[in-house]
Amino acid sequence: MNEPTLNDPPRYATRADCEALDAADPLAALRARFALPEATIYLDGNSLGALPADAAARVHDAVTRQWGQDLIRSWNTAGWVELPQRLGAKLAPLIGARPDEVIVADSTSVNLFKLLSAALRMRAGRGLILSERGNFPTDLYIAQGLIEQLHRASGEQPADAREGSAGAAGRLRLELVDRDELPAALARARERHESGHGDLAVAMLTQVDYRTGTRLDMHRITAAIHAAGGLALWDLAHSAGAFPVALNDAQADLAVGCGYKYLNGGPGAPAFLYVAREHQRAFSQPLSGWMGHAAPFAFDTCYRPADGVARYLCGTPPVLGMVALDAGLDTLLAAQPLGGMQALRAKSLALTRIFAQRALSLGERHGLRCVTPLDDDGARGSQVSFTLPDGDTAHAVVQALIARGVVGDFRAPDILRFGFAPLYLRHVDAWDAATALATVLDTAGWDRPEFRHRSAVT
Amino acid sequence: MNEPTLNDPPRYATRADCEALDAADPLAALRARFALPEATIYLDGNSLGALPADAAARVHDAVTRQWGQDLIRSWNTAGWVELPQRLGAKLAPLIGARPDEVIVADSTSVNLFKLLSAALRMRAGRGLILSERGNFPTDLYIAQGLIEQLHRASGEQPADAREGSAGAAGRLRLELVDRDELPAALARARERHESGHGDLAVAMLTQVDYRTGTRLDMHRITAAIHAAGGLALWDLAHSAGAFPVALNDAQADLAVGCGYKYLNGGPGAPAFLYVAREHQRAFSQPLSGWMGHAAPFAFDTCYRPADGVARYLCGTPPVLGMVALDAGLDTLLAAQPLGGMQALRAKSLALTRIFAQRALSLGERHGLRCVTPLDDDGARGSQVSFTLPDGDTAHAVVQALIARGVVGDFRAPDILRFGFAPLYLRHVDAWDAATALATVLDTAGWDRPEFRHRSAVT
Repeated sequence: MNEPTLNDPPRYATRADCEALDAADPLAALRARFALPEATIYLDGNSLGALPADAAARVHDAVTRQWGQDLIRSWNTAGWVELPQRLGAKLAPLIGARPDEVIVADSTSVNLFKLLSAALRMRAGRGLILSERGNFPTDLYIAQGLIEQLHRASGEQPADAREGSAGAAGRLRLELVDRDELPAALARARERHESGHGDLAVAMLTQVDYRTGTRLDMHRITAAIHAAGGLALWDLAHSAGAFPVALNDAQADLAVGCGYKYLNGGPGAPAFLYVAREHQRAFSQPLSGWMGHAAPFAFDTCYRPADGVARYLCGTPPVLGMVALDAGLDTLLAAQPLGGMQALRAKSLALTRIFAQRALSLGERHGLRCVTPLDDDGARGSQVSFTLPDGDTAHAVVQALIARGVVGDFRAPDILRFGFAPLYLRHVDAWDAATALATVLDTAGWDRPEFRHRSAVT
Repeated sequence: MNEPTLNDPPRYATRADCEALDAADPLAALRARFALPEATIYLDGNSLGALPADAAARVHDAVTRQWGQDLIRSWNTAGWVELPQRLGAKLAPLIGARPDEVIVADSTSVNLFKLLSAALRMRAGRGLILSERGNFPTDLYIAQGLIEQLHRASGEQPADAREGSAGAAGRLRLELVDRDELPAALARARERHESGHGDLAVAMLTQVDYRTGTRLDMHRITAAIHAAGGLALWDLAHSAGAFPVALNDAQADLAVGCGYKYLNGGPGAPAFLYVAREHQRAFSQPLSGWMGHAAPFAFDTCYRPADGVARYLCGTPPVLGMVALDAGLDTLLAAQPLGGMQALRAKSLALTRIFAQRALSLGERHGLRCVTPLDDDGARGSQVSFTLPDGDTAHAVVQALIARGVVGDFRAPDILRFGFAPLYLRHVDAWDAATALATVLDTAGWDRPEFRHRSAVT
């Protein structure tokens, strides 16, 4: 076996080495479970996962038979009403959770609102939401929206930049720190906690930075959050389906994540949320729609939350999106007999290392720099991000690569981002993508004006 | 023409009369735009609309080509990112709104939370949410969830049943009245308003009662809400696509509605919301996810709401559900050259009158009673609801009808509910369904135990 390990990263010297890795790869057959476009190396599965080969037929059946023929009775006969729980239970082992701790519902943003609201209830009297300045924006926007709402209700003025002013531990505020300042910020929160002035309600962190691919140590940071008396709310957008996540083992309290990235659930797939069993009955959340009621079809006048995680449901489940996500989850479950998420992680590390090593060896003279940790495998997600000396160049190079069939994306201000979904990528893909990147960098003309038009979504 | 009018409702004496109506019906061809099951009269389109005939192909294209082949670039090339606005603009004329006043997003429940939150901000200092005791439960649950959240933030105890106690106009509370008490409740709110103690922030009303099919006069009640200083928030779940809605003309402030009923958007289709142009820039709402940001792809750290109704977006749009809903909207737009919603309304009134008249003439001796207004056409939606002397009997009759291919549903405690979607139902369907109901009532054995098992969702 040529699997990389943390302590002994192999070098990949030739394309033939990569071919040999593919020939020996026990996960190689999983690629056939996807309908991939011809002549494309798709390195954007961290933004939109590829199409599972059977998803079209499954969605078609849901449309024509379940909806078209069976109509309303499919809520029972096709199990539509159970989809949030059934898919949650299916996803749970991939993220180290128990089946009754996960549901699929709504969007990541809406689920964040539910969990942040619940976290503030569970830590009543504490007002600090700690997050990262570089967190994915919607996470920050949702926290800001919730804080503004609660400030209005309490008659307080928003704290704005006056962090920590006005003293009271219960004063609601969002503190943003850089990723490398997190340990220090948590240590300060712990000191306040131990001196009887604890204010940390919840730390809301995305495990893998969407731009750099840096991965946080969930165990260590969750422990530090708990030591400060706070709850740990993890955003698993770039984690779930990318590598093993161990929510229970890390004692994580709450989590959300995205269905359309490494879970291959399709564009705008429903998201998921996790509530550790011990917290499930503590409180309900304000988006108390009928599907989270203890008896939705009793049509009671008063809300009474369901037992367990179902109280985090809100409206009617989006059935077509759920059916596609179901197919996406099955692509990951197909890896279970082949070593599962651990095996996928090993392959992901190999893919990203092959790509990064070769791209850097060929591209450094053009100013290509890697912002993803390479030496310490544990600190990187399933992506590799580079920078180039200026943002327009970086954007143009990404566009030129796309034109050559190597699909990555650009993230402002200057990041070239390449995601590696180990389910459907080969070692030779990583090699060839690096070659293509070097070719683009070597070729005059990639900065022609036609590549400089930045698309609305990349 | 045999079209019914409000003042001169025709009698339908024979099935041949209905056949003649179908033969002369300019809307009859629209039925072919649906893929309907054989040997079924589907009277549950008010719960889940029928499948548009081209929806399967459109969804299939979205899955295989847009997602499978074009992958991430479909956000631009297939216009995924514009779906909420594009579908909103398409829906707007069906509900009497301007194209920039409607977006498609999330679920009805989530959208209610956004709009109720916004309404309370727009009417700061007023604390009364007025609604109906018989409103659809999720509307009430969302109001209860929001109120509980805001009470917690302000340190107040929830008001519970002590409505009106403790005096302060700003005290947040939900007042529930019966439908026939609404005018009196609004008159009292107006008196308080005129005496300088106005407390009505928003009245949240579902235009058509989901059980009885009673329809509120949107113009008159909106005016009464405004006279009391409040905002009018309408739930159009059983209105949109069922008959002409005139949001602008009625000066409605806010509205939500459902994509999967008369809009034929498929199971769990995305919902919609409407914000009158004058209110759009007044405030933002707490579910401030990235898609509602002024520049979502600038990845700013701070939320800055988009101009216009787009600030009511939250997370990533559910593309597959949107594509199906797009097909559903097209079935309604196909009626535009044939008279549009006005013509559909006339047909709906004929269908419901045929069904109700015949069912009552045959079934009254079994205790069948109609709870939907029949004399005043304006007061009925596009459904007919009956009761029978006891709930178990009513439930068993609905099950027996389903077994005969006439699909209605049961609503506790004792309601037999039949929705009439004029796009795909024929006058003979209304006649035959009434005949089937009478046959079931006449036939011994419909109350056998196998019909008495109440399904989880009906």
